[in-house]
Amino acid sequence: MNDLSRLSLNQISIKQWSLAQAIEGCARHGIGHVGIWRDKLAEQPVTQTVRQLNDAGIKVSSLCRGGFFSAPTATARAAQIADNRKAIEECAAISSPLLVLVCGPANGQSLGEARNTVAESIAELVPFAKSHNVQLSIEPLHPMYAAERSVIVTLAQATDIALQLPADTVGVVADVFHIWWDPLVHTEIARAGKRILGFHVSDWLVPLPDLLLGRGLMGEGVIDIRSLRQSVEDAGYSGPIEVEIFNQSLWNENPDAALRRIAEAYLHHV
Amino acid sequence: MNDLSRLSLNQISIKQWSLAQAIEGCARHGIGHVGIWRDKLAEQPVTQTVRQLNDAGIKVSSLCRGGFFSAPTATARAAQIADNRKAIEECAAISSPLLVLVCGPANGQSLGEARNTVAESIAELVPFAKSHNVQLSIEPLHPMYAAERSVIVTLAQATDIALQLPADTVGVVADVFHIWWDPLVHTEIARAGKRILGFHVSDWLVPLPDLLLGRGLMGEGVIDIRSLRQSVEDAGYSGPIEVEIFNQSLWNENPDAALRRIAEAYLHHV
Repeated sequence: MNDLSRLSLNQISIKQWSLAQAIEGCARHGIGHVGIWRDKLAEQPVTQTVRQLNDAGIKVSSLCRGGFFSAPTATARAAQIADNRKAIEECAAISSPLLVLVCGPANGQSLGEARNTVAESIAELVPFAKSHNVQLSIEPLHPMYAAERSVIVTLAQATDIALQLPADTVGVVADVFHIWWDPLVHTEIARAGKRILGFHVSDWLVPLPDLLLGRGLMGEGVIDIRSLRQSVEDAGYSGPIEVEIFNQSLWNENPDAALRRIAEAYLHHV
Repeated sequence: MNDLSRLSLNQISIKQWSLAQAIEGCARHGIGHVGIWRDKLAEQPVTQTVRQLNDAGIKVSSLCRGGFFSAPTATARAAQIADNRKAIEECAAISSPLLVLVCGPANGQSLGEARNTVAESIAELVPFAKSHNVQLSIEPLHPMYAAERSVIVTLAQATDIALQLPADTVGVVADVFHIWWDPLVHTEIARAGKRILGFHVSDWLVPLPDLLLGRGLMGEGVIDIRSLRQSVEDAGYSGPIEVEIFNQSLWNENPDAALRRIAEAYLHHV
C-alpha cells in the first residue's frame, strides 16, 4: 500500500545537509516534499531556494518553526510576535502552506499564564497568516519538554486552542513521538479532525538514549505508528508525512545512506 | 505554617542508607514517617524492622512498590499478581497503610491491552488487599516513562481505574514530578478527591540532568509545588507528604547533610 509519494524529509533528520543539498538529496531519492528549518532557509537567498525547489519539483510541506510566545514582559512578547510574522512571510516566500508552532516554555510566566499567552498570541497572528495564505499549526510536544520547549503538551490542548480560531488558518500537527503515550490519543485525533494539518513520524527508542537527540527511525522503537496513521487518515488527513528524527547517530552517517534508511523505514513501518 | 510533622522520607531519596539507618536517621532529624522500598525491607528480618520502627516512633507512610502487571503470557501475569500479594503481606507486616503501584510498561502487550491488564490486575488484588487492611495506590508516572515503567501516565487514568473499585481499598498517589505538566492537573486532583492516598514531592530541574536520576530538591526546579499541595489539601488529603527524589548527587552526599537539606527544602518550598 505504501510508496514514497507522501514522504516529506524534515531537514532536521539529515541536519548535516545544507538546504541546497537537502533539496538535491530529495530529488535524487524520489522524495517530493521537504520540511524546512528557518536557520537552514537563512543560508542562501530565498529566490535561489525557490528556484532550486521549482527546478527539482520539490514541494515544501512546512516551515519549522514559529512559536515561543511566552515571556515575562509585554515587550519581549511583542518581539516574539514580530518574529512569528517574519516566519509567516518566509512561509509565503517559499510557498510553505504551514508554519509549525512550537509554543515555548513558560519563560517567566506561570504555566497557566503562559498557556493563555500562547492562545492569545496565535489569535493575534491569525489575520497576518490568513493574508499570507499560511496556516498556523500548533504542535503539542511531549510533556518531558514542558519546562524548556512547550507548555502545550497534549493534542487536546492544541485542538482546544485551534477550535477557537478560524478553521482555514489554525490547526494542529500530530507527531507520533510527542503524542503516542496519551491514553486519549485516538479520541483526540478524531476530535481534531480536519484541523490536523501535519503528521510527523519517528520512533521512541527503549531505552531512550537522550531527551533531545534520542529519537529513532520508524520501526526501531515502541510506537504503534500504523495505528496512529490510520487514525489520522480516518480523521481526514491526506497530506505529506514528515519524517522528523533528532538523532546524533543519524547526523554522523553518510547523508545518502541515512536518507535511504529513512525511506526504507517509512515504507515498512509507517 | 510549615513544620516537619507531615514530612515522610521516601527511602530512595537517601538510598545510601540501609533501612535500619534510615529509621535511625528519621528519628535523629525529627521526621516521623518513612516510605520503605521492598529491596531495603528485605535487608533484615521484618520483626527487627517493626521493633526499630516502634522504638523510634516512626510510622510507615507507604511501601514501594507493587505493580508491573502487564506481560505477554497469562503465566507471567499470574506471577506478577503473586508478587503483588507478597507485597501486600509485607505492607501488613510493617503496618504500611499503602502499597504504591507503579503499573509497569506494556511488556509484550499493546498499550491498550496493557492498560486493561493493569485495571483487571488491580481489581483482582482488591479482596486480598482489603483483608490485609492495605490500600492500593495507583501512581501515574510521567509520560516519559510510558515505554519502560508505566502505561498509566495521567492522574485522570489512575483516577478512572480507582473509581471503578472500592473507595476503602483503591486510590491514587499524586507525585508532583509526574503530574505537574498536565493542563488538567488541578481539575483532576479535585476529581480524585478522597481517592488521593499519597502526595509525593521533588522538583523538575532545568535542564533535566537525567531521565531517571535527575529529580531536584523542592525549590530547585520549575514545579509550583505549593499550588499542587493546596489543590491536594482542598481535595481532602491531610496525610504524610513523601519526599521522593531520585538524584545521584544526593546519593553521593553525606546522608545526614542530605537529610538536613531535604528538611530545609520541605519547610521552604512545600
